[in-house]
Amino acid sequence: MNAMPSNPAAAPALLQAILPTTLIHPRSLSEHLGVELTIASETFQHTGSFKFRAAYNLASQVPQDEIIAASSGNFGQALACACKLLKKRCIVVMPATSAAVKIAAVRGHGAVADLVDTRVKSRAARVAELAAEHPGAYIASAYDDALVIEGNATLGSELAATGQHWDAIVAPVGGGGLISGIATGLRRAGNTTELLGAEPALGNDAARSLRAGHIVANETEPETIADGARTLSVGKRNWAIISREVADIIEVSEQNIAQALRLLFTLANLKVEPTGALAVGAILEQPQRFAGRAICCVVSGGNVDPLNYAQLLTAGQSGVAEKGKA
Amino acid sequence: MNAMPSNPAAAPALLQAILPTTLIHPRSLSEHLGVELTIASETFQHTGSFKFRAAYNLASQVPQDEIIAASSGNFGQALACACKLLKKRCIVVMPATSAAVKIAAVRGHGAVADLVDTRVKSRAARVAELAAEHPGAYIASAYDDALVIEGNATLGSELAATGQHWDAIVAPVGGGGLISGIATGLRRAGNTTELLGAEPALGNDAARSLRAGHIVANETEPETIADGARTLSVGKRNWAIISREVADIIEVSEQNIAQALRLLFTLANLKVEPTGALAVGAILEQPQRFAGRAICCVVSGGNVDPLNYAQLLTAGQSGVAEKGKA
Repeated sequence: MNAMPSNPAAAPALLQAILPTTLIHPRSLSEHLGVELTIASETFQHTGSFKFRAAYNLASQVPQDEIIAASSGNFGQALACACKLLKKRCIVVMPATSAAVKIAAVRGHGAVADLVDTRVKSRAARVAELAAEHPGAYIASAYDDALVIEGNATLGSELAATGQHWDAIVAPVGGGGLISGIATGLRRAGNTTELLGAEPALGNDAARSLRAGHIVANETEPETIADGARTLSVGKRNWAIISREVADIIEVSEQNIAQALRLLFTLANLKVEPTGALAVGAILEQPQRFAGRAICCVVSGGNVDPLNYAQLLTAGQSGVAEKGKA
Repeated sequence: MNAMPSNPAAAPALLQAILPTTLIHPRSLSEHLGVELTIASETFQHTGSFKFRAAYNLASQVPQDEIIAASSGNFGQALACACKLLKKRCIVVMPATSAAVKIAAVRGHGAVADLVDTRVKSRAARVAELAAEHPGAYIASAYDDALVIEGNATLGSELAATGQHWDAIVAPVGGGGLISGIATGLRRAGNTTELLGAEPALGNDAARSLRAGHIVANETEPETIADGARTLSVGKRNWAIISREVADIIEVSEQNIAQALRLLFTLANLKVEPTGALAVGAILEQPQRFAGRAICCVVSGGNVDPLNYAQLLTAGQSGVAEKGKA
């Protein structure tokens, strides 16, 4: 469908455009979880999530002046921002149920937010319609694209370049763009740290895929609070990397996603969106597995409606507020 | 009252004990405020605020094995943590109205949280009582102490060491420990950047002091939501530095403190406590003064009860959620 540049490796211009990840060492949260925790937070990346790495790389490297993408929000926002910076046109197909801040942000960057009722028409079908209407546009996958994976590989490179030792790196899995990118960057740097995925139990296609040895898809978009992981399956390019480089994928309950979000607030002073809480949620899910180990949890993003966040914060008051601080 | 070490400069052990400040460049918040904004966030410092810099320096340098301090919360928490690490005993006199998370954190570090009803007895009076009961203890001021100022000077040194140019650095003012420390570190490094204070209009003693040319005190502890700035006046040692090095102190309304907290959440993905929002609140207070300038806002801490934070977040929904993201 799309022409691919012959050398998709990260361009120097990309490294100038992105912000380095923010490494946080929250002592109280480490003590609470019983691990030696490092957080690599992409919440302070441009547009508030890791997606800007991928979006800027893609938008800067494709020759087309117009880009169309489906996105549950963060990729669309990142792509809209990247296209604004690169003076390209952008259409983002979003579920009508996306977080209001994410829709507003896409529009705020001058892109078209094309809202679709996913109960009536799939996002893929709507993208196909738009592609037919805009034959000169590049159709970008939020994850299944070599330029997306290369963009996200910059995070793996950064983690490798810290020189820190971790027993495992845990990253959220939706379409697999982030974890396949991290794997690419890490392994290219000769870093063999165990890489674990964390995905909502409600949409455990990646875990089932890893067990089956081939891509398994959810039948419908999972209704998890981790809205960045409401994907049907991982992408083919992502799977090629995940199946080789990811040791395991941990299925995180909705309760543990929400609890991880609260713990990050209370014991690490970190605002995260539910999807961003998945990796810490994985530690809550399997505490014995991680006990006493040095773990790097990747927090993928922080974009969440204030009202939604306030509800998540106050839903689980008992206990959390009684603990110490970061 | 206290023996002072002859060389109060920051020890190498202090630099090993503290975490470097977190520099954030939130593009959406910059655009919203019309400034080129850098945030120096101490929310990820040990114990969640800059106070750990001062507390660790003090606790490590005084010869006494027991330390008593009055604190509205963050200094107490930091001192309790520092004393735990240094195996010293610690009593923190706190207003009974302090944030629950702050009281719990002091106790979580093994210190005694001595709660006082400030309508009946001042914190100073209670500290004097405890000092009489514990004659071997060091009585630490949360701000008016050379070791506190030296500890906080590490932040000024860090800002100078970034090599970044700012037209002004804005920092919260309560007792003046932070801004006098920043001034000390900056000027020692030969950095002459304009330094501005931000204090609650409800407790504008520092601004009035600067206008009067001498220390002016509030008659009662100001009932501002910025609980870290509920001080009667700046300290004498702090004033000696502030009067010389701080160009102006901006008085921030309660509305702008809360709005700054919300903007930091929505447009910078940063969780801050109300006191931590003062510097950004100062920009809201005097937008013309800062328009188009490169400004570094120091965010002093992030410790806030989830329920309190949720209420502040949702109190001002209109408008904010419609803006773009970090």
